[in-house]
Amino acid sequence: MADSGKRKRTEEAEGGDGDCVEQGQKPQPLDNGGLLGVRTELTPAFSFSAFRVEKVLRESAREKIIFLHGKVSGDSGDEKDAVVILEKTPLQVDRISDLLNKKSELKLQICNDIYSTYTLYPPLELNDVKTTIVYPATEKHIQKYRSQDVYLVQETGDDYKNITLPFLQTQSFSIQWVYNILEKKAEADRIIYENSDPTNGFILIPDFKWDQKQRDDLYLIAICHRRGLKSLRDLTAEQLPLLRNILQEGQEAILKRYSLPGNQLRVYVHYQPSYYHLHVHFTALGFDAAGIAVERAHLLSDVIANLELDPLYYQKRTLTYALRANEPLLKKFLDAGKC
Amino acid sequence: MADSGKRKRTEEAEGGDGDCVEQGQKPQPLDNGGLLGVRTELTPAFSFSAFRVEKVLRESAREKIIFLHGKVSGDSGDEKDAVVILEKTPLQVDRISDLLNKKSELKLQICNDIYSTYTLYPPLELNDVKTTIVYPATEKHIQKYRSQDVYLVQETGDDYKNITLPFLQTQSFSIQWVYNILEKKAEADRIIYENSDPTNGFILIPDFKWDQKQRDDLYLIAICHRRGLKSLRDLTAEQLPLLRNILQEGQEAILKRYSLPGNQLRVYVHYQPSYYHLHVHFTALGFDAAGIAVERAHLLSDVIANLELDPLYYQKRTLTYALRANEPLLKKFLDAGKC
Repeated sequence: MADSGKRKRTEEAEGGDGDCVEQGQKPQPLDNGGLLGVRTELTPAFSFSAFRVEKVLRESAREKIIFLHGKVSGDSGDEKDAVVILEKTPLQVDRISDLLNKKSELKLQICNDIYSTYTLYPPLELNDVKTTIVYPATEKHIQKYRSQDVYLVQETGDDYKNITLPFLQTQSFSIQWVYNILEKKAEADRIIYENSDPTNGFILIPDFKWDQKQRDDLYLIAICHRRGLKSLRDLTAEQLPLLRNILQEGQEAILKRYSLPGNQLRVYVHYQPSYYHLHVHFTALGFDAAGIAVERAHLLSDVIANLELDPLYYQKRTLTYALRANEPLLKKFLDAGKC
Repeated sequence: MADSGKRKRTEEAEGGDGDCVEQGQKPQPLDNGGLLGVRTELTPAFSFSAFRVEKVLRESAREKIIFLHGKVSGDSGDEKDAVVILEKTPLQVDRISDLLNKKSELKLQICNDIYSTYTLYPPLELNDVKTTIVYPATEKHIQKYRSQDVYLVQETGDDYKNITLPFLQTQSFSIQWVYNILEKKAEADRIIYENSDPTNGFILIPDFKWDQKQRDDLYLIAICHRRGLKSLRDLTAEQLPLLRNILQEGQEAILKRYSLPGNQLRVYVHYQPSYYHLHVHFTALGFDAAGIAVERAHLLSDVIANLELDPLYYQKRTLTYALRANEPLLKKFLDAGKC
């Protein structure tokens, strides 16, 4: 599942607890021998000087990050795959005065009236790049980081019955981690609010992506107690009490706990969701979170209004969503000549 | 209007053509005299060494950008406001091998199995920061860059009639630039496609935000010929032919001109829109464009389906959208006790 997948990815990105200890604070010069010189069981076999870029897997000029696939030629001339992820680090407020006033070099680019632009060259220690290496990398790693074309699917009610639902039933998605939360077998201490009604109740819990250190990127998930509601497609007027509870009580709990009022919250479901047990996302309205795009997110208030308008709205309605080129469900739609 | 506003902002950000010429290519050392030393009519009065940060107006760890408001004390001890914008530059593919293999310093952080992370310290010339200065800055500049709280408004059909519409009628939004396009008085050479029917026709034209250099961030706008359709709220079943034309012919024109098929396009309207003449946005599905969030964007295919379901859907329906704290319309809703 995506969420558990996210846990895994997070561990990967952070390198888990790490078998290794940190190196000294002072930057170490890199040269052909730089890593070899300090290679022990505490340092990776990867050699920067032997890395050759093969392909840009993904890059974002907006986020200043780039994902590279490359080869590393070993001493014996054999080549192994590596994934290298480079990301510029955020600008830190407490370093700004150093950045502007100390040893920085700068070059005036344009000056027009009260507007001027410069290229600023900060001292090394103020301008580092976070570098993540996967080595040796498998094809699975390379695929994971490769940006893929996405395609819109227009799923009619019949398409859901004939294509999507049969496909979902062939998949063995484990949502044991969801049941563990609902049964208090895991993360019980993280629960922010619970309505324990088995039909119209839910548990509100912070999403893994939120470190809870600031409200700016507030992200919580409401997981309903009732089982068998896979997604938006299963919702009818019968679920209106559940949905209204989640919207109202969820907003109240977040106001009480985080002092963020309901009119500063984005409350929505995903279709397709990343796991098929009904859950609702609560994110800070000012937070440009992943998964809020119109082709995936459905405001809970709209869902309620649509079910009030037509109890079978989500059984009949064509739902539009995006699938990545490598997703099996897309192939099902293509095979059916629907996309 | 936002679009013309964007033009203005773009000019500002780029500093226009600039009254000044570029300085030499070699970075110049910055010190107290660094700028004073080269100050001429071609260089700004701003002095980095005299800049003191007062407040962070906005920052984005994701985009590695920070907007600062500060004071610059002049020789005579007087203080003037300045806005300083710092943004890390994107990682360039053709510089990667230099970044990884030449004079970069690096520090191993974590090593766990095949995963390892480093802090990389690139040489100055490979790691610059784009710096934009507004000096002296007015309160208007400072407000413009300040991040503001946003609030959700739940606008019922009656709220639209009683609050939003009367407010819009008091505003003197000039959309002359839109009429100039429709009448071929401006940008006629930029038109990609036209259906000249006065009732159900439209003009398709690239959005200003798109430089048309790559398809990744493809962004076009369809502007309907018919006047008086302000927004989503004015749409009834009567506009279905117009909306179907825009969706189908717009997709066909983009496929023909840019070889991007309809299932890789996000086609949507904004509510609230940035100007009140009906227009439809076409963006590449893979492009994380601004304004695609669920609280502002409405897929044209959904709009059509909702009007087929209920001809008066958008007259009756509560529409949810976000307003920034300083937007006058928000005050109207607050005064009416609706938010």
